[in-house]
Amino acid sequence: MSVFISFEGVDGSGKSTQIKLLLQYLDERGVPYVFTREPGGTPIAEQIRQILLDPANRGMSVITEALLFAASRSEHVSRTIRPALEAGKVVICDRFVDSSLVYQGAAGGLPMEFLLTINEMATGALRPHRTIVLDVAPEVAMARRSGEEADRIERKALEYHQQVREGYLELARAEPRRVKVVDASRSVDETQSEIRRLVEEVLPRRFRGAGATT
Amino acid sequence: MSVFISFEGVDGSGKSTQIKLLLQYLDERGVPYVFTREPGGTPIAEQIRQILLDPANRGMSVITEALLFAASRSEHVSRTIRPALEAGKVVICDRFVDSSLVYQGAAGGLPMEFLLTINEMATGALRPHRTIVLDVAPEVAMARRSGEEADRIERKALEYHQQVREGYLELARAEPRRVKVVDASRSVDETQSEIRRLVEEVLPRRFRGAGATT
Repeated sequence: MSVFISFEGVDGSGKSTQIKLLLQYLDERGVPYVFTREPGGTPIAEQIRQILLDPANRGMSVITEALLFAASRSEHVSRTIRPALEAGKVVICDRFVDSSLVYQGAAGGLPMEFLLTINEMATGALRPHRTIVLDVAPEVAMARRSGEEADRIERKALEYHQQVREGYLELARAEPRRVKVVDASRSVDETQSEIRRLVEEVLPRRFRGAGATT
Repeated sequence: MSVFISFEGVDGSGKSTQIKLLLQYLDERGVPYVFTREPGGTPIAEQIRQILLDPANRGMSVITEALLFAASRSEHVSRTIRPALEAGKVVICDRFVDSSLVYQGAAGGLPMEFLLTINEMATGALRPHRTIVLDVAPEVAMARRSGEEADRIERKALEYHQQVREGYLELARAEPRRVKVVDASRSVDETQSEIRRLVEEVLPRRFRGAGATT
C-alpha cells in the first residue's frame, strides 16, 4: 500500500478538524494508517518543535527556522514516516516539506533552491503521493482561531498569511497531480466530502468507496 | 579591528586550556575580545546545543546533526559574532564551520557540497581570518580526557577520530593561509607559544608583541 498523504494550509483553515474526520473514515474502512504531524513526530523532533514554537524565541531568523524544520523533518522521515510506509501503512501527515517552501520561502523570502536542497537531503527526496491544501482567506482563518492562544508563528501578520496562501496556490499550479486545493471556507461536511474523494483517488482499489471512479 | 579567529581540534586536544591561556594574553595586552563557542553562544543556540549533546539522542542521524549545527551557527553568527566584529572586537570562537566539514563531512560521510551550502547560508559566508587546529594523535586525545564523562559525540570510536584528524589536515592543505595546524602533543607552554605567534600575525600591529615580524 504505502500511500503518503500530507495536509497543508494556514492555521485556522480547519486542518485539525478535517484530519480527525478523515481518520474516522479510514478507521471505518479498516485502512491501516499512521497519523503524524510536523514539526515533531519523534522524541528529537519534538525537542526541536519546542524551540520552534516557543514564543520566547520570536527573534529567530528565518534561516535558523528553515534549518530547524529540516532537522526535525529528517528525524521524522527516518524514524516514523519511512518505517510506516515500509510496513505498508497509509501515512497521514499534518504538514510536510511544502510548509517550508511556503512559510520560509514564498512568505519568508529564502531562496527556493536552498529550501529544496536542505529538504531533499532531510527527506531522502521523499514526496507525498497526495497533498491536500485547505484554502481559506486569511481573514477567515484568523477569525476561526480567535480566542486560541497564538503561538509565535501565528502572531505574524495578515500580509504574511496572504503570501502563504499565494505560495500554496503556486505549488498547486506547479504540481497539479500531487497538490490539490480544497475550498475550506465551505461547511465542515462539504469540505470533508471533497477531501475523502481526493484521498480515495490514491488509495488501493479495495479501500475505495462506491463513489470512487478511478 | 574585527579579527575573527576560530579554534578547532578533537576533544582532548587541549583546546580549552590553550584558549584560556590565549585569552589571558589578550587581556594583558588590552586587546578587546569576545570569546564564544559552538554549538551555542545565544539562547536559541544553547537550546539546540542541549539537543545535540544529550546522550539520550545518540540515535540522531548525521543529516539531522548537520542541520542542527548549522541552525545553531546561524543564530550564533547573527546575534553574537557579527555584532562583536562590527563593534571592532577580536572574536575568539571555540569551533566553527570547519567542525561541521570535518565531523559531519570527512568523518560523517555527508557530501561536502551540502555542508558548504547550509553553512554558507547559516553564516552569510562569514569565514575566520585564522583557524588554529590543535593536532594530536587520537590516542593521546583519548588518554587526556579519560576520567571525564564522555558526551554523545565523544563516545564515538577511535577510527572516527582518525578520520576527523585527517579531515582537519586536509582543510589545512586546501587553505594554508587561513588554517594553521599546531602540534598539540608538546608541552602546554610550547603549544601556547606557537598559538600566540599565529594569532599575532592577524592582529593589528599595535597589539603585536616584540617578537612579531609581519
